[in-house]
Formats: sequence, structure tokens, C-alpha cells
Amino acid sequence: MFFHKQELQHHAKPEKADAVYARKLQEVLGGQYGEITVAMQYSFQAWSAHIPGKYRDLLFSVAAEEFSHVEMLATMIAQLLEKAPVGAVDGAVQSDPTIAAIVGGTDVQHAIVAGAGPRPVDSNGNPWQGSYITASGNLLADFTANANAELQGRLQVARLYHMTDDKGVRDMLGFLIERDTMHQRMWTAAAMELQEKGIETMPVPDKFPRDKNYLDASKQFINFSDGANAADGPWAQGPVTGAPEEGDFEYLPAPNPGVPMPAPTTPDPRFYGTTA
Amino acid sequence: MFFHKQELQHHAKPEKADAVYARKLQEVLGGQYGEITVAMQYSFQAWSAHIPGKYRDLLFSVAAEEFSHVEMLATMIAQLLEKAPVGAVDGAVQSDPTIAAIVGGTDVQHAIVAGAGPRPVDSNGNPWQGSYITASGNLLADFTANANAELQGRLQVARLYHMTDDKGVRDMLGFLIERDTMHQRMWTAAAMELQEKGIETMPVPDKFPRDKNYLDASKQFINFSDGANAADGPWAQGPVTGAPEEGDFEYLPAPNPGVPMPAPTTPDPRFYGTTA
Amino acid sequence: MFFHKQELQHHAKPEKADAVYARKLQEVLGGQYGEITVAMQYSFQAWSAHIPGKYRDLLFSVAAEEFSHVEMLATMIAQLLEKAPVGAVDGAVQSDPTIAAIVGGTDVQHAIVAGAGPRPVDSNGNPWQGSYITASGNLLADFTANANAELQGRLQVARLYHMTDDKGVRDMLGFLIERDTMHQRMWTAAAMELQEKGIETMPVPDKFPRDKNYLDASKQFINFSDGANAADGPWAQGPVTGAPEEGDFEYLPAPNPGVPMPAPTTPDPRFYGTTA
Amino acid sequence: MFFHKQELQHHAKPEKADAVYARKLQEVLGGQYGEITVAMQYSFQAWSAHIPGKYRDLLFSVAAEEFSHVEMLATMIAQLLEKAPVGAVDGAVQSDPTIAAIVGGTDVQHAIVAGAGPRPVDSNGNPWQGSYITASGNLLADFTANANAELQGRLQVARLYHMTDDKGVRDMLGFLIERDTMHQRMWTAAAMELQEKGIETMPVPDKFPRDKNYLDASKQFINFSDGANAADGPWAQGPVTGAPEEGDFEYLPAPNPGVPMPAPTTPDPRFYGTTA
Amino acid sequence: MFFHKQELQHHAKPEKADAVYARKLQEVLGGQYGEITVAMQYSFQAWSAHIPGKYRDLLFSVAAEEFSHVEMLATMIAQLLEKAPVGAVDGAVQSDPTIAAIVGGTDVQHAIVAGAGPRPVDSNGNPWQGSYITASGNLLADFTANANAELQGRLQVARLYHMTDDKGVRDMLGFLIERDTMHQRMWTAAAMELQEKGIETMPVPDKFPRDKNYLDASKQFINFSDGANAADGPWAQGPVTGAPEEGDFEYLPAPNPGVPMPAPTTPDPRFYGTTA
Amino acid sequence: MFFHKQELQHHAKPEKADAVYARKLQEVLGGQYGEITVAMQYSFQAWSAHIPGKYRDLLFSVAAEEFSHVEMLATMIAQLLEKAPVGAVDGAVQSDPTIAAIVGGTDVQHAIVAGAGPRPVDSNGNPWQGSYITASGNLLADFTANANAELQGRLQVARLYHMTDDKGVRDMLGFLIERDTMHQRMWTAAAMELQEKGIETMPVPDKFPRDKNYLDASKQFINFSDGANAADGPWAQGPVTGAPEEGDFEYLPAPNPGVPMPAPTTPDPRFYGTTA
Ligand SMILES: [Ca+2]
Ligand SMILES: [Ca+2]
Ligand SMILES: [Ca+2]
Ligand SMILES: [Ca+2]
Ligand SMILES: [Ca+2]
Ligand SMILES: [Ca+2]
Repeated sequence: MFFHKQELQHHAKPEKADAVYARKLQEVLGGQYGEITVAMQYSFQAWSAHIPGKYRDLLFSVAAEEFSHVEMLATMIAQLLEKAPVGAVDGAVQSDPTIAAIVGGTDVQHAIVAGAGPRPVDSNGNPWQGSYITASGNLLADFTANANAELQGRLQVARLYHMTDDKGVRDMLGFLIERDTMHQRMWTAAAMELQEKGIETMPVPDKFPRDKNYLDASKQFINFSDGANAADGPWAQGPVTGAPEEGDFEYLPAPNPGVPMPAPTTPDPRFYGTTA
Repeated sequence: MFFHKQELQHHAKPEKADAVYARKLQEVLGGQYGEITVAMQYSFQAWSAHIPGKYRDLLFSVAAEEFSHVEMLATMIAQLLEKAPVGAVDGAVQSDPTIAAIVGGTDVQHAIVAGAGPRPVDSNGNPWQGSYITASGNLLADFTANANAELQGRLQVARLYHMTDDKGVRDMLGFLIERDTMHQRMWTAAAMELQEKGIETMPVPDKFPRDKNYLDASKQFINFSDGANAADGPWAQGPVTGAPEEGDFEYLPAPNPGVPMPAPTTPDPRFYGTTA
Repeated sequence: MFFHKQELQHHAKPEKADAVYARKLQEVLGGQYGEITVAMQYSFQAWSAHIPGKYRDLLFSVAAEEFSHVEMLATMIAQLLEKAPVGAVDGAVQSDPTIAAIVGGTDVQHAIVAGAGPRPVDSNGNPWQGSYITASGNLLADFTANANAELQGRLQVARLYHMTDDKGVRDMLGFLIERDTMHQRMWTAAAMELQEKGIETMPVPDKFPRDKNYLDASKQFINFSDGANAADGPWAQGPVTGAPEEGDFEYLPAPNPGVPMPAPTTPDPRFYGTTA
Repeated sequence: MFFHKQELQHHAKPEKADAVYARKLQEVLGGQYGEITVAMQYSFQAWSAHIPGKYRDLLFSVAAEEFSHVEMLATMIAQLLEKAPVGAVDGAVQSDPTIAAIVGGTDVQHAIVAGAGPRPVDSNGNPWQGSYITASGNLLADFTANANAELQGRLQVARLYHMTDDKGVRDMLGFLIERDTMHQRMWTAAAMELQEKGIETMPVPDKFPRDKNYLDASKQFINFSDGANAADGPWAQGPVTGAPEEGDFEYLPAPNPGVPMPAPTTPDPRFYGTTA
Repeated sequence: MFFHKQELQHHAKPEKADAVYARKLQEVLGGQYGEITVAMQYSFQAWSAHIPGKYRDLLFSVAAEEFSHVEMLATMIAQLLEKAPVGAVDGAVQSDPTIAAIVGGTDVQHAIVAGAGPRPVDSNGNPWQGSYITASGNLLADFTANANAELQGRLQVARLYHMTDDKGVRDMLGFLIERDTMHQRMWTAAAMELQEKGIETMPVPDKFPRDKNYLDASKQFINFSDGANAADGPWAQGPVTGAPEEGDFEYLPAPNPGVPMPAPTTPDPRFYGTTA
Repeated sequence: MFFHKQELQHHAKPEKADAVYARKLQEVLGGQYGEITVAMQYSFQAWSAHIPGKYRDLLFSVAAEEFSHVEMLATMIAQLLEKAPVGAVDGAVQSDPTIAAIVGGTDVQHAIVAGAGPRPVDSNGNPWQGSYITASGNLLADFTANANAELQGRLQVARLYHMTDDKGVRDMLGFLIERDTMHQRMWTAAAMELQEKGIETMPVPDKFPRDKNYLDASKQFINFSDGANAADGPWAQGPVTGAPEEGDFEYLPAPNPGVPMPAPTTPDPRFYGTTA
């Protein structure tokens, strides 16, 4: 069960209106790596968890915190829009280039659709979608997805930090960035523990009965381009990473000769494909 | 520049037709973590790379290999569909429950739209989309995204392996799984090197001027749910992970008291929001 | 059958070009609550109607009128774009901030894709989609959906009215707003008649054999947040609305204790979920 | 702020596995009118509310309850999938028509992607999307949207009720149906109060300065089809509904003659439109 | 203006219920090349036309006919669903493999969402979307798009014809196929006339001031793969097609040496891209 | 198999930064008719081809060239963004209308998400999607789709050419336009040969056993609108086009009387449709 409290985890109060910035902030509310994504991702991972205990407790906890971040951003966006000239002009204001420039940079649906409210979309107005999230039932795979989400998310918030000098906005973003710092650390620590305890190890899934015939393919870096420096990376020499180890990486400057393509197919003539 | 050669990297020849399985295989061709995704993701990361040399060489190389995997899967799907009863019946076949069951499990667009050919969609027929990919310009963030993609992808291929006993299909999947093994190792090794060399470290982005006031928030696990075991994880005690270290994780059994929500907004009356 | 006549229901002639406004007007052409939505929604409801007569006649009639509104908006948008500086510059015009501001506020696909023509998208360029519409086969549910569509649609047109002072545009919007007024009245009257005649009543669907054990749940307002004023609404006290009545609303300041979650699932090991 | 508790509002325990039904249940989890939709819709309406007090308290409360419904459905789906033959066959099982039929009716991504877990998609596998929700800032418009959502939602749950005879599933659906009953009553009561108190009245938005020239258009039912019975409805005769009243509906058997279309446009020749 | 008449252009009456076929038929109602697509495509082309007269008259006419085809298909689908066992079971029917197989092959939203009615989606349940259509303002480009739409559409209807032996369905499809035949002929004839009269010729757009330096590139077939037979086509030898002619096609067995890639970019450091 | 070489087919080097133009250029990278579309379309057609030899060789070749065009555009966009003021302001720059206007016209995700890199989206930020492509297995249908793609694509590039005066950008576009010229010629020549050799002829599919009863319908232009000039086109008189010919087009000024609609359906009452 979820409960709500009419408080915010941290202040979400801008110094002044800024509709263009409100639009940009939508990215970390409703974008691919926004707060809706992590809230839903951790929720679905919790509901798909197969063992009770600390990992599931962790997922439930952070999911609820992320919904609280969704709320902070939505609250901030509403205020950035409150006094902004978002298009309700009743006059020739648009011929003022400053105003026109501002309107041009806003999400016009903020005005037309939401009446100066936040929306479940990214900074280009693309609606949030369920295919942004990952929940596979495998905790090592999913904690890696979570680490990635927090890395990408913090990177975007950091970029947004530099796009405003509003002290109120920066205060909130500064706080969120530190929570993202914690979340990067947390998923990394959790993924590391899974491996140290042998609950899951790489390659994921580790219990798959591998085909011994193709173990070479699991160690070869094969160059499909012509950049010679690819041979210098730790992926092309030295011991392979992960558990259980199996020897050394190998560098192939080009793919081995391939196999012939099978003959083109000849489906039922009632599909009217071109067959001669 | 890209070039094509009419060969395959590995055999892609099923023993027999199986339209239901062809539909399932679409997931790893055109799904969220399918081969189109990784091919496009690594390509865009290469085009967004800011330094020449081994990391970009790596990206260009693997991108081209992944397009070659797209081709193997597309070729396999065409053959799984070739002789299958995918719906062109001209008769009362549908009253045969075996045939009906097969048709019910297929992607009917394989027959109606593609005439028994592969399609750029996932196993539920959702078209592949650009928002599946990640390319941020930050290599540590993106290599983590890549590791995640290979973990999720290998997991899906492993599941698909158990859904058929066709030796030809299993042979191809067995090979792809080992290439996914290599790719998991490769991105992990590359991400590790970035950190060891200090090119990028966690938290990403590491050069962001953090707000000293909120450093506590970067170490606190705050429980927003009631699962007491969350306190037992390595994310709630002991030294924090990543560089530079800053002390120990801390466990908060519940959030500190929040701050009051700002007053609701009162936008321009010409938006006709309800204001009293 | 549908027929077309090369006339418009009302004038659709702007005084002057305005590409930024053309983009905004796309919302009520191709947005969630635009004219394409209502035209398609009423059409599908007519095709899904289960009784002949006045309700289906109503649906067919208004559907065709809405397609006529689609045409008025498309015609208007083409003219707003006709003489506008939508980006075909052949020169350094973009360094003029006024021009740049205008271009920045336009839908650039109006120029690049449509050559200064209207498009089946909303004001952020999201393509119209079939999932905007509702057609359930239940007339009370669907007439409520229709009332909602006309309320939201008129609200958006009213907002757009204030974003221009072009007399030609305002004349057309003024007319459309009155048709929306009629349509709000019409769906409300139709929904009311359905209930008065007992064809459908609330709760929808009224013929469902309700579980007597849970009738309490149908009258309780349960507060899942901490806003104490929720107790003051007509949803928390006094007789319940709808037919047949069943007693009084009841206020619960918080949910009753929940039930334990079932144990986490343990699916087939071949899914490689993390199970301990 | 949102908080989570590891309890469910009501039992969510099926008697037996049923992967086909799990797929169907996705509709009311992640479909257009599923629980994610209402949870997000009420949340965004609360964040967009312009007055503190009971209406906003109502929105926050029900939003959190709906997230709790999301959780019940996700939990149920995980269990329906737990022991189901969702495709991990390792053998010739697919030639058994009963098994094949079951697999054909499942969401294959339940197995391949989620490892037998719930997903944020509808019953056809379409990802949930932000454009399902409505939040305009106008409470009468939005409470009407909410009433519609609860009518459509309860209708779908009622249909799903008849598609299973699993007592555990029916118990949960029976409970949810009564909560939907409450929610239908609640939004209706709230919308009625808004009108009775004159906070908002129809036509929405009621404060818009209407164009007196077109008041006739706000009362005319104009038949754009040839169904003569449309004249018999309460939308074609008698006093108009809503406030303030303005006289009687009027029936026009066909549209008045239209106006000529404006001449086709002639945009800049550099768009290369066909102009002669 | 559009008008509706409660008649169909042709019979749309199946002999018997068939919910699986109803789902398949959705492809040509709401798919990429279904009737909604052509109806909307020709409408938007008409609204974007820049000259009055026969071409625009043609577009308006066929657009309205296509909406009439949408109606025929929607009507047919409603009837195919009317008596079908689409999932409302109230019993253990699903254990009957024949019934289960049928249910597995249906669009379950036909039952759950539409109550046995048609939907604006394709045969995999993907909602119709505005990005299926083409309307550029250039008549030769658009008539070519229209010819393609009719070729693809007729191909799909022909495939669907073979997937049923219901005489009523085949009668309707047989009629629609002949209208598609007419429409293939019509767009071809119209495109040919545009070229013969010199209104538009290939390459489109023909008025673009071509760069004389690159005329060679307009005649070279450059082989980027290794299929030697590509040299044998009429695209690799003999006079070029289109107006005005410019000489002969030329065959290059491989691309000329390329040019060096520009150096990787170094954006503002506040984007935190990895720069070494 | 695909291979990559770190060279470009042609120069892709702008004279100066221009983030607004970078956004516009996304249309021909990731839009409906952008380079990703043709690269994927020709690839899937090759994988769906049913005969070896020159047509498939052609498809494989051009597919790889189009991926090389994707790369040129991505490279160009990265450079257009490199030094542009894309929003990282750290100051009150936004109050400068010139800068504000530029920012307003950019794709803000270029900055926030990609850190000044290219993205797989169109000029409005809509992600590229698999439903843009066509691959039916019928070569005449598909080569017509390809011709259309090249006509639309070249038209868009020509429009974009006029939206800049950057010599470097124009040089690249000038080259691409000539490759599009070649590709228009190539697909036209290929489609013509298919017909001349009788491999495929119109109407597509030509092997479908047509219903003799409806041949009239294949020659009649039926006017569903009131534009009298539609009678003057070559589609309304004279011999029909295509093979085999069958007589003359015929003009019908209006549809023949239709047939009655079937009675509305009465589905199972457990769907709770309104039935009286
Ligand atoms: Ca967060
Ligand atoms: Ca791969
Ligand atoms: Ca309307
Ligand atoms: Ca609910
Ligand atoms: Ca048609
Ligand atoms: Ca190209």
C-alpha cells in the first residue's frame, strides 16, 4: 500500500517564473531517465522479486522515495509556470522578440492543455511510456539497469543545473543530485554484494548451461571496423573479467570468414511474394 | 562508412518451420534489448564520442557486429516462417485446434504485412523505437548502459533457448550467448579502466561541483517503506562505494520530517483553472 | 457512407500569417482532445452501437460534423502558414532575433515535411493516435467520455482564443466554442435521459451482480493522504449518489489494516530469476 | 511525499496459475483506463490544483489508493504466472494443442522479458503512456474525466470478472469493483457540488466571454447524417441543460449552406509544392 | 464539409462469427496501410493542395470513399465478433483446447475494451497513428505515396482473402480489391499525367537548382555490398530514367575512397562528456 | 555481415555552429523519410527477398550506403552542436532575446540528454520507429515504396537546403541530393523492369484470382465529393493503365445507391453493452 503526506522531502520553490526552464525540467520528471521512470522501475522490480528480505525491502523503499521526487519536480514546474508569459496574450505581445523568444522555447501544451501545470512528458513533449523501464526478475541485471538509470539521471540533472541561475531551482537540484549520488552508490554496492555472495555473478544469467563449443567466442574481441586502437583496450588482452574466469581476451583484427547465407525463402504463393 | 558482405557470422538455419517461435525471436531482434537496439546504441555513442582512439574504435567495431547479429536473426526468422501454416488457409483448417493454436500464437503481421518475413518489432508487435537507446556523451554512463543492455539481452536469449528444441535455432542462440558473454566482459572491463585511469569515476558526472550542504544526503539510506531488512544491506552501513570516498553509509528508518508544500499556484485567469 | 462537399461550415480565414499560432492550433486539430479525436470517437461508438434509433443517429450525425471541424482547422492552419517565414531563408535572416524567435516557436515539420501544410499531430508534434479514443459499447460510459471530451476541448479552444488577436481566427474559434457548448449540452442531456429511462444507470455497468460482502467498500471514502479537509466533501458524508441508492457515504481517516502480501513467487528456474 | 507499507489493501491470491488470464488482467493494470492511469491522473491533478482544501485533499488521497491498486494487480499477475507453462518448454510440448493454445494466448513478454512478472503494459502489450491521462487545472472538466475513467474502468473489470471462475481472482475483482463504485459516486458528487456552489458550471469554462453572434449555434442540433430519429432526443427539443439556461434546443435536419472554401494556398516556391 | 448516410457502399455481412479473423481484419482497418490511413492521407493532401481543380477534386473524392471503406470494415468486424466466444466464459471453457485456441488468436481488447466492437488499431493491437500518412504538398511525390499505399493495401487484402472461406467476408474483400485495383490505376494515371504535362517531373523536386559538381553521383550505382549481380540491372547501365535525361548509368563495384572523418567534437565542459 | 570503416562517403563539415539547424537536420536523419528509414527499409526488404540475384544484391548494396548516410548526418549534427549556445548558461544569458530565440528553436534534448550529440529522432523529437518502414516480400510493391521514400526524402533535403547558407552544410546536402536523384532513378528503373519482364505487374498482386463480378468497380471513378473537375482527369476516361488492360475508365458523378447497413449487433450480455 502507498500513502501520501502533504509535505515535500525538500524545498521546491523557485525565485521567479521561467516557463522555458519548466519545459527543460520535464526531462527529469517524465523523460527516459526521469523520476517517473525510476519510481515505476523500482516498483515493478519489487513486485517481480522472487525472494523476500533486504533486496526487496530496498526496492520498495527507493520506489516510494522516487515517487516523492516526482512530486517535488511537478511542484517546482507548476511554480515556474505560475507567473510566466506562456502565451495567453490578448494582444500584439508576440511581436516583442523577447516575449516571442520565450514562448518559442516553452512547451506550449503547458499552457493549452495543462493550464500552466506539469505534464507526464519529457522536455520535447513525448509522453512517458512503460517501455522506459526494466524489470527482469534477475537482480544483478536489474541493479545494473538501476545503476545506469541513476548515472544517466544525475548527468541530466547536472546539465540542467547549469542552465539556470535561479537559487531556488539550484537548491532543489543540488539536493536531488546528492540523492542520485547515494542511489549510484547504493545500486553499485547491492550489485557487488550479489556477486560477492555468489547469488548472481556475471555473465548473467550465470546458471545457463553454456555451449562449450563456443567458449572462444566469449573471449574474442573481433574488430568489425578499422580502428586499430581497439586492440589496446583491456577487452582485447589480459584475463577476462567476471566469474568464473576462463583465460585471456583475444584480439581478432577482423572477423573470421563467415558462413554462406541460406537460400532465400519461398513461402506459400498466396502471400504473393516475388519468387521469380 | 558501412559495407555489407553476403555472408553470416554464424549459421542461422533451423531444422524446421515454427512460426510461433519466430514471433518470440522478434524480441531479441526488435525489442527493447534486441540487436537493433545495441547496434544503434553503439553507433550513436560512437558518433557522439568526444575523443578519438580505443574507446571510439571499440564502439564502431561492436556496432557493426551488432548489425550483423540483426541480420542473423532476420535470416533465421524468415526461415522459421517459410513453411509454417501462418494463416493462408483457404479452408476450414482453423477448426483444427492444433492449427488454430499455432495461428493464435503467431505474429499475424508476419503473414499479412510481411508475407512471411521478419519485422522491426518486438515479440508483441511493438515497433522498435529510438527511445530504446542511450547515448549521453559520457563514457562511464554509457558503458554502464551497454553492460546493462548485454545483461538483459543475454538473459532474454537464455530464456528463448529453453523455449525450443530445434537444434539449428539452439546452435545460433548458443553462439550469440557467447558473444553476449564477451560483450558483458568487454563493457565491464572498459568501464573499469575508465575509473582506474580516472578518466571518469563515480558518481557520474564526477566533475560536477557538489553542494557541500547536502553531502549527508549522498550517504543516507532512507527507508520510505516498512521493510526492516533494508537496514542490513551494504547500502546502509560501512564505507560508501566509489571515488572519492566520503565516509560511511547511514541508515534512516524513515524520512526526516518534510518541508511544507508551497501554496498552490494561481495562474493567469485566462487559463480558466479553478481558483475558488 | 461518407460524402464530401467543397464548402466549410463556417469561415476559416485569418487576417494574417502566423506560423507560431498555426503550431498551437494543431492541438485542437490533432491532439488528445482535438477534432480528429471526437470525429473518430463518435464514429467508432456509432459502429459499436447495439441498438438502432436516436442514440446511434446522434452519434453518426455528430461524427460527420466533427470531420467538418477537422477540415476547418486544417484549412485555417494552411493559411496561417502560407506567407509565414517558416524557415526557408537562403540568407542570414536567422540572426534577426525577431525572425529567429518566430522560427523557434513553429512546428518545423510544417515547413520541412508538409511544405506549409497542416499535419495530423498535436501542438508538440506528437502524431494523433487511436488510443486517444473511447468506444466501449456502453452508452452511459461513452456519453460521459464524450462530455469529458467536449469539456476539455472547449477549455483548450478558449485558451487558444486568448493567444491571438487575429479577428479571423477569433471568429472561427468563437463559432467552434458555441458548437462545443452545444455538444456539452447534448451529451449531458443524452446521458441524463439514459439514466432517467433506466436504460443505463450508475454505477456502470448497472447489471453487474455485485458482491454483497463488499458493499461497504462502495460507500467509504478512505483517506490515503493526510489532508483533513477531505472529510468535508459530499463524498464523505450524506446519502450516496446514483441509482439505486444504498445509504450514506462514510469517512475513514485512514485505510483499515491491510492484509499480508503473498509470498514472492518462484517461477521456473529456466527464467533465471534471482531466487536466493 | 509517498510512503509504502508491505501490505495489500485486499487479498490478491488466485487459486491457480493462469497465464492467459494474467495477460488479460494487464488491461486494468497498464491499459488506457487501468490503475496506473488513474493513479497518475489524480496525482497530476493534485499537483496542478490551484486551491488548497478538500478538492486537493480528495485528489491526493485517491491517487495514493490507486497506486495501492496498481500493486494489488501486479501482485496478482505475478502469481497467475508463477506456475504457468509460459513457454519454457525444453521439449516437444508445443505440439500438444492444449499447451500450444495456452501459450498462444499469453503475453510472451511476460516470459521472455519479465521472467514471469507483471509489466507496465495493456492486454495487447502496448506500453502505458502519459497521454492516457487528463489534468487541465479546471476541476469540473477533470472530475468529469475522472468519472469517465471510473465508468470505463469498472466496465472493463466487470467484463474480466466473467472471463475467469477462479475464486481468488473474483474475490479481488469483486472488491475492486466496489471501490470503483465508490469512485464513480465520489467524482459525481464532487462535480455536482462544484456546480451547485457555482465554483464551476457548464459550459466549461463558464467564465469565457462568449460571442453573442453565435449563441444560436450553442442550441442547434444539426443533423450531418440521415438518421431521422436524432430529432427525437432531448438534445433536439426542450430547454437546454446547464447553467445559465438560454432557451430551447432546436433541430436542423441538415446543415445550413456552408461558406466557400478559401482559395488554396501558394506558399514560398522553395517548398516545391505543386502550384500549377 | 462531410456528410454521412446510413448505407454501406457494399455488403459487409459474414456468414458466421469469427473473432480470430476479426482481429486479422483490423490490419486493413487500422494498420499502416489500412483504410484509416488512406482516408486521412488523401484528406490531408487535399487540405494541403495548392491548386484548385481536378487534382484536388480527385483527392477530396477518394478521401470520402475511403472513410466509407473504414465504415464497411468496422461494420464487418462488429459482426464477426457478435456471436464469438471472445472470452466471457463463466466456466471452465478455457480448458477446451479448441476454445482456448480461438481466444488465444483474438484481440483480447475487442472483448475487454470494446465489448465486441471494432477498434482503431492494427492486427497486433497497435493504435493507428498520424505518422502513417504522407502529405507533402508536392503532387508527384504524394501520388507516388498513394500508389504505394494502394499496392501495399491490396496485397494485404489479397492475403487476408486466403485466410477465410466465409463467403460474406470474401464477397466484401473481393469488392474492396477491385476498388484498390481502380485506385492503383488512378494514382498511376494521375502521376503519369503530371509528368507528361510537365507539372512535376522526376527527380522530385524538379525545380531544385542542382549542384553541377555532383551530377556524376546522380548516375552512379555504387556497390556497398558484394553481390556481383547488382551490375546487371537497368540501374547500372544504359540511359538514366526520368526527365531531363543526362546520360548513362554507371557501375562502381565499390565506393571510391572516402574522406577522413572530422575530429570528434569537444562541447562545453558543463555537458560532462568524456573528453580525456 | 556489416563492416565499418572510419571514413565518410563525403565531407560533413559545417562552417560554423548552428544548433537550430542541427535540430532541423534531425528530420532527414531520424524522421519518417530520413536515412535510418531507408537503411532499415532496404535491409528488411533484402532479408525478406525470395529470389537471389540482382534485385537482392541491389537491396543489400543500397541499404549499406544508407547507413553510411546516417553516419554523415550524425557527424554533421555533432559539429553543428559543438560550439553552439545550447543552454548551458550559468548566467542571465536567457534574457538576451537573440540567445533565447536560438535556445527556443533547438532540440533541448540535444543538450540535456545527448550532451551536444545527434539523436535517433525527427525534427520534433519524435523517436524513430519501426513502423516507418515497408517490406512486404513483393518487389513491385516495395520498389514503389522505395521510390516514394526517395521522392519524399529528396524533397525534404531540398527544403532544408534553403534553410541555411552554411557552405559546408550545403555541400553535403548537395551531394546527398544527387544520391537521392540516383536512387529515384534506380527504383524507378527497377520497378519498370519488373513489369516489362512480367515478374510483377499492376495491379499488385497480379496473380490474385480476381472476382469477375466486380470488374466494373476496377474501372469506375466514383465522385464522393462535389468537385466537378474530377471528371476531367485521365482516371475518369480513356483506357485503363496497367497490365493486362481491360477497357476504359468510367466516371460516376456520385456513388450508386448503397446497401442497407446490417442490424446493430447484440453481443453477449456479459459485455454490458447498451442493448435497449
Ligand atoms: Ca530520484
Ligand atoms: Ca548482439
Ligand atoms: Ca468539434
Ligand atoms: Ca482503482
Ligand atoms: Ca480503400
Ligand atoms: Ca540516402
